[in-house]
Amino acid sequence: MVKAGIRINKHTKVKLKTKKAVVLLSGGLDSAVTLYAAKRKGYKVYSLTFDYGQRHKKEIIAAKKIARLTKSAWRLLKFTMPRKGSSLIDRKLSIPKNRAFDKKIPTTYVPSRNIIFLSLAASYAESLGAEAIFIGANEIDFSGYPDCRLKFLKSFERTLKLGTKTAVLGKKITICAPLVKKNKAQIIKLAAKLGAPLEHTWSCYQGKGAPCCVCDSCRLRQQGFKMAKMEDPAL
Amino acid sequence: MVKAGIRINKHTKVKLKTKKAVVLLSGGLDSAVTLYAAKRKGYKVYSLTFDYGQRHKKEIIAAKKIARLTKSAWRLLKFTMPRKGSSLIDRKLSIPKNRAFDKKIPTTYVPSRNIIFLSLAASYAESLGAEAIFIGANEIDFSGYPDCRLKFLKSFERTLKLGTKTAVLGKKITICAPLVKKNKAQIIKLAAKLGAPLEHTWSCYQGKGAPCCVCDSCRLRQQGFKMAKMEDPAL
Repeated sequence: MVKAGIRINKHTKVKLKTKKAVVLLSGGLDSAVTLYAAKRKGYKVYSLTFDYGQRHKKEIIAAKKIARLTKSAWRLLKFTMPRKGSSLIDRKLSIPKNRAFDKKIPTTYVPSRNIIFLSLAASYAESLGAEAIFIGANEIDFSGYPDCRLKFLKSFERTLKLGTKTAVLGKKITICAPLVKKNKAQIIKLAAKLGAPLEHTWSCYQGKGAPCCVCDSCRLRQQGFKMAKMEDPAL
Repeated sequence: MVKAGIRINKHTKVKLKTKKAVVLLSGGLDSAVTLYAAKRKGYKVYSLTFDYGQRHKKEIIAAKKIARLTKSAWRLLKFTMPRKGSSLIDRKLSIPKNRAFDKKIPTTYVPSRNIIFLSLAASYAESLGAEAIFIGANEIDFSGYPDCRLKFLKSFERTLKLGTKTAVLGKKITICAPLVKKNKAQIIKLAAKLGAPLEHTWSCYQGKGAPCCVCDSCRLRQQGFKMAKMEDPAL
């Protein structure tokens, strides 16, 4: 963390302001690495996790564990999505298994999910006086969700510049997506470098005892570890 | 509402798709007029109201009543703001009374509120297949909130274009703010023209038995009726 103060002499201490960042922490691999990347950059981190009716709570438990390990602030926010329509929140729909990674957006897409997450993070950032929001979005090894792409994130940042009191006061909230252009193997290597506790992360779309190994999320993770020539500590 | 079908002859009926719109309905004057404007434009409307910990529930009750009068869908979504820091959600802070309408953003500003509302509306619109989101934002007779300005709304619309499945499929979600450039008197006259039930709207920031008449919202409303040379039916 950035030092809170520099001692000039024994009577004077110039207090430096600590840089704050809100981190979107789902409990998966990417968001855990993102949290550690934000910490490495010197931010005082405030993690935000959402309970939005997803089909299992394993990732929320993982997020809590990871945030606790970093001894930093963690907040769980609960809300209901306006409507179902995604296999990630509707148990009547099944999660695709061994799907071809084509250009088709799968049924696991949750309408406008990252827009909602970033909006709530923006509100948190404004009220905390944080200058950055970290998100583990990735547009290389991903399921084709449009709200994971850099061009969307940059546009959201511009929108904040036009619609927040923070911006009117001449400050900026930066959307930081340190993993957006990395492949999964690179992310895993970065995790090792940063000491992110991947053994506590949960990526599987199913919430069963062990990862299903056939959903998009499990398969991207498997491929990543294989390419990085490493063992997955969560298995 | 746009007709659901046109009868060509007694055997054939060409089914026209009904245009759908999500309407952000707070229960105040502007959002009620916006709902009626959306209906007048032929949309099948789906109103969305939020319980986000605001200091009173009178506007929620008003929203429900107004939506029921239009015999259209109404949905109440509950969530907690990540942090207090606005006199509209923190009862320990007082609502400014008879404030000068200067360029200073008052304590009633709720960090990133419209961004959150629009994001949840976008999710609803995507899952419904709605092509528009109506919001009663206004940048003429307002408290200076940056998320009520047209340039912010246009930027949000561009962000949706880059971050939704709807856009990938070649469709568009338009942000419609029919009141954004009108003054309060013009809005009140429009309400009369559209038959919006202003007697059931609640604008006051306080949630007492009667409007306080000294908060920004009451005063803008009073001035509007005065300029429109009309009586406020809610008083």
